[in-house]
Amino acid sequence: MTASRIYPGSGHVDFVGAGPGDPDLLTVAALKAFAAADVVLHDRLISDAVLALAGETATLVDVGKAGFGPSWKQGDIDALLVDHASRGARVVRLKSGDPTVFGRLDEEIDAVSAAGISWRIVPGITAASAAVAGIGQSLTRRGRNSAVRFLTGHDMQGFADHDWTALARPGAVAAIYMGKKSARFVQGRLIMHGADRATPVTLVENASRPDQRVLATTLDRLPADLAAAEMDGPALTFLGLAPRDAATALSTINKELA
Amino acid sequence: MTASRIYPGSGHVDFVGAGPGDPDLLTVAALKAFAAADVVLHDRLISDAVLALAGETATLVDVGKAGFGPSWKQGDIDALLVDHASRGARVVRLKSGDPTVFGRLDEEIDAVSAAGISWRIVPGITAASAAVAGIGQSLTRRGRNSAVRFLTGHDMQGFADHDWTALARPGAVAAIYMGKKSARFVQGRLIMHGADRATPVTLVENASRPDQRVLATTLDRLPADLAAAEMDGPALTFLGLAPRDAATALSTINKELA
Repeated sequence: MTASRIYPGSGHVDFVGAGPGDPDLLTVAALKAFAAADVVLHDRLISDAVLALAGETATLVDVGKAGFGPSWKQGDIDALLVDHASRGARVVRLKSGDPTVFGRLDEEIDAVSAAGISWRIVPGITAASAAVAGIGQSLTRRGRNSAVRFLTGHDMQGFADHDWTALARPGAVAAIYMGKKSARFVQGRLIMHGADRATPVTLVENASRPDQRVLATTLDRLPADLAAAEMDGPALTFLGLAPRDAATALSTINKELA
Repeated sequence: MTASRIYPGSGHVDFVGAGPGDPDLLTVAALKAFAAADVVLHDRLISDAVLALAGETATLVDVGKAGFGPSWKQGDIDALLVDHASRGARVVRLKSGDPTVFGRLDEEIDAVSAAGISWRIVPGITAASAAVAGIGQSLTRRGRNSAVRFLTGHDMQGFADHDWTALARPGAVAAIYMGKKSARFVQGRLIMHGADRATPVTLVENASRPDQRVLATTLDRLPADLAAAEMDGPALTFLGLAPRDAATALSTINKELA
């Protein structure tokens, strides 16, 4: 942090979407915010390739809320944002994907806003967009689905409840964030509401990253295949989508991602 | 198109998301594809600021399917993609927002793939992400909604039918694409299914562009307020979201967009 950047009382917070991991999926706006930052508070899932793009004088702080090791509480993150910005720093709050999609954005905006600090949201490529591009599919398709849902596998109460009747219908497409642990729960709810066991389900682990992996399965085989795949990285689960099956397409995708 | 770029038989098509209009919301991957393109086939809605970023030697072709003037048929666009790529050109098919969201992507991939031409999808910032950032809100929020729907206002059969019962519930959040013409239809369906007439509805016209406009209304007043606003540009309609009302936030948003 250079002294010349500190203007007491004129700090600012940019809530920036870092995209799914590939640094080429950052927006120009994100790069600009990143380059101008005095302090970058980032989640655990942000890739090293993305963090390497921060300006040389920026201070990087990992405020990840991981399951293991010291864990940051939301209130502490809020306080840190306000503290840095109140002292005049340009702060980037870097969130994986798009900050408005399952990003716990509101608490942080409320804290910054209550402190009278200016802020801005810089959108990012969300995991669903990157993952569906990685399997060569569309989230929507004429004649198949005129709506797509983004869901979370779990919420504050545990496994999240959803509109299972609608999701169980033929042609329904949903992108499930953080859906690995809830896979068996989701499977049970959907089958109970009449979903076809042969409904395609595709998981994309580490979407857009060099170690991206695709698991194509069915609702029936989801828990077994997921357990066998031993996915450790963040994964996006698509209900109702299979990878585009043309050999040309898949060979291209693999080549582009290699 | 420079001769040195033409390698017969090795053409390629990148389906690239141009984002919502602000050139700073292009990804680095989009810029790279754009700079390497021999031919760019683009929709009508792509902003001039974005088109100005194409490489100097690239040929720009407007294949927009506008309501007025000569209109391109989907089959003609498919044929043009195949024709250019078959002759060895690097083609960018530039689509507004994210190509996988209401982008008519599948027909074009099918055509390119059937011709044995390699292709790739480059994700973009979809209108919902840019518009919600513009009103300082999140698409999802703990305790309010653990799912968000992207819908289209109309499909091949006319006004699109949706799961109105679920959408009518308190706390439901949906981003409606191309929703201006269907506003009265959507209002009617939702109220018929028990939606509160006071449900907030927000329209964002020309999201992310210098001429962005925000219309904050309610389900009850939607048709009247929309008619009075006379919005000519593309608009994203949020069901269940109001602009963040803290004065600090709004003044910041307006300042940043000015």
